[in-house]
Amino acid sequence: MDRTYVEKDSPLPLYYQLAEALKTKIEEGQFDTHQRLPSERELSERFDVSRMTARKALSEIESEGYIYRSQGKGSFVAEPKLRQSLFELTSYTEDMQRRGLSPGAKVLSLDVVEDDAMLAEKLNASSDERFVKLQRIRLADDEPMALETSHLRRKYCPGIEDVDFTNKSLYKTLKEQFNVKLGTADQWIEATLADSFHSKWLKVEKASPMLSTERTTFMSRGDEAIEYTKAVYRGDKYKLFVKLNH
Amino acid sequence: MDRTYVEKDSPLPLYYQLAEALKTKIEEGQFDTHQRLPSERELSERFDVSRMTARKALSEIESEGYIYRSQGKGSFVAEPKLRQSLFELTSYTEDMQRRGLSPGAKVLSLDVVEDDAMLAEKLNASSDERFVKLQRIRLADDEPMALETSHLRRKYCPGIEDVDFTNKSLYKTLKEQFNVKLGTADQWIEATLADSFHSKWLKVEKASPMLSTERTTFMSRGDEAIEYTKAVYRGDKYKLFVKLNH
Repeated sequence: MDRTYVEKDSPLPLYYQLAEALKTKIEEGQFDTHQRLPSERELSERFDVSRMTARKALSEIESEGYIYRSQGKGSFVAEPKLRQSLFELTSYTEDMQRRGLSPGAKVLSLDVVEDDAMLAEKLNASSDERFVKLQRIRLADDEPMALETSHLRRKYCPGIEDVDFTNKSLYKTLKEQFNVKLGTADQWIEATLADSFHSKWLKVEKASPMLSTERTTFMSRGDEAIEYTKAVYRGDKYKLFVKLNH
Repeated sequence: MDRTYVEKDSPLPLYYQLAEALKTKIEEGQFDTHQRLPSERELSERFDVSRMTARKALSEIESEGYIYRSQGKGSFVAEPKLRQSLFELTSYTEDMQRRGLSPGAKVLSLDVVEDDAMLAEKLNASSDERFVKLQRIRLADDEPMALETSHLRRKYCPGIEDVDFTNKSLYKTLKEQFNVKLGTADQWIEATLADSFHSKWLKVEKASPMLSTERTTFMSRGDEAIEYTKAVYRGDKYKLFVKLNH
């Protein structure tokens, strides 16, 4: 039965076909989170491939974050990625709360910035405007998830540089303390590698896969930009969803 | 002036701040594609940092694909990523044509698949349905861009396994030859690393950053699923855009 997924006459390498088959089984829920996967020997028998092929398939899906290995015990299914929808602009804090996770942040810096021509251009602001720059490590149940650097036009939220964002949502603060209503946002998404700074703060290996985003958020009134944010999400923790129309 | 971007009392490492500043300058178009960047020495003077810091910043942005280096000649701005919008479901072929690039494909396999319970579940099909599996390397001006594996419900496009997809759009073929009208699609996006198979076919280093997508496409009539596709795009070539609503 399982051999359907490993075709000997396909141009695809056998280990790759086996890795794809295992990933699909994990995604389909045929293996539960933290369940032990069949051993190299069992896989090689079941799929009629060499043990080398089975080993290569396992290390392949391990590097993609589908499984983790425990010395002498075998391979186990890793926790699934957090699935974030791209339908709407959501607050990280509210998003985590909805998932039953405890949101938090480690504030790395919070400063007023002046004379920043590039930021002024990004936010379509006048060159003499001041900005507030907030840099946070976003946490979920105390585990680091993302590094986020937000830039705000201070004229719409004067004094926001004095807020303690350790346990506070930026969007909620903008709304409740400064009466800012957010409208749409333009977001760019790309795949990048973790550098040593990400590695240190997000607890990932250097050169791990990361989802990097860049967002400009507009206010619902007047369509003025209010926020420009760059974020780097752990690729092993995040998966984005979007609905496309033809 | 430039020193605004490298703050000595910031918790951010200097090389990281310098790398971010250089990336922003490149994105803003202050340096043109293939233009030479200032040397390590010039950067260290201009930003008042050590040459080691300048070197680390350059190798950082090189690993992220912003620049390439030429032995003895310096660092040059790389070509920008292709920007793909997630507003609508577009055909790769038409998308490339719009950009003035010549689309193409290397067909790795095209087969009829039977008895595939997982695929039947993905596509909400009955268990005795047959599927057509098409695996292609997508090209732009003969350069490999993505590895795409599409699965189609054969009952909606019988005989599609005989089409030569080397220079043909799958979506156009579905529409023109089989009168299939596409509606919406659900798409997942994640960051992964290139494995040796991607490395071979997509001409990237192993463990390069990749944008992996998984898509289920529905027909406009009756809302039945027609296509389930997995694709791996080169992270150094692709950037996705989406508009969010609050």
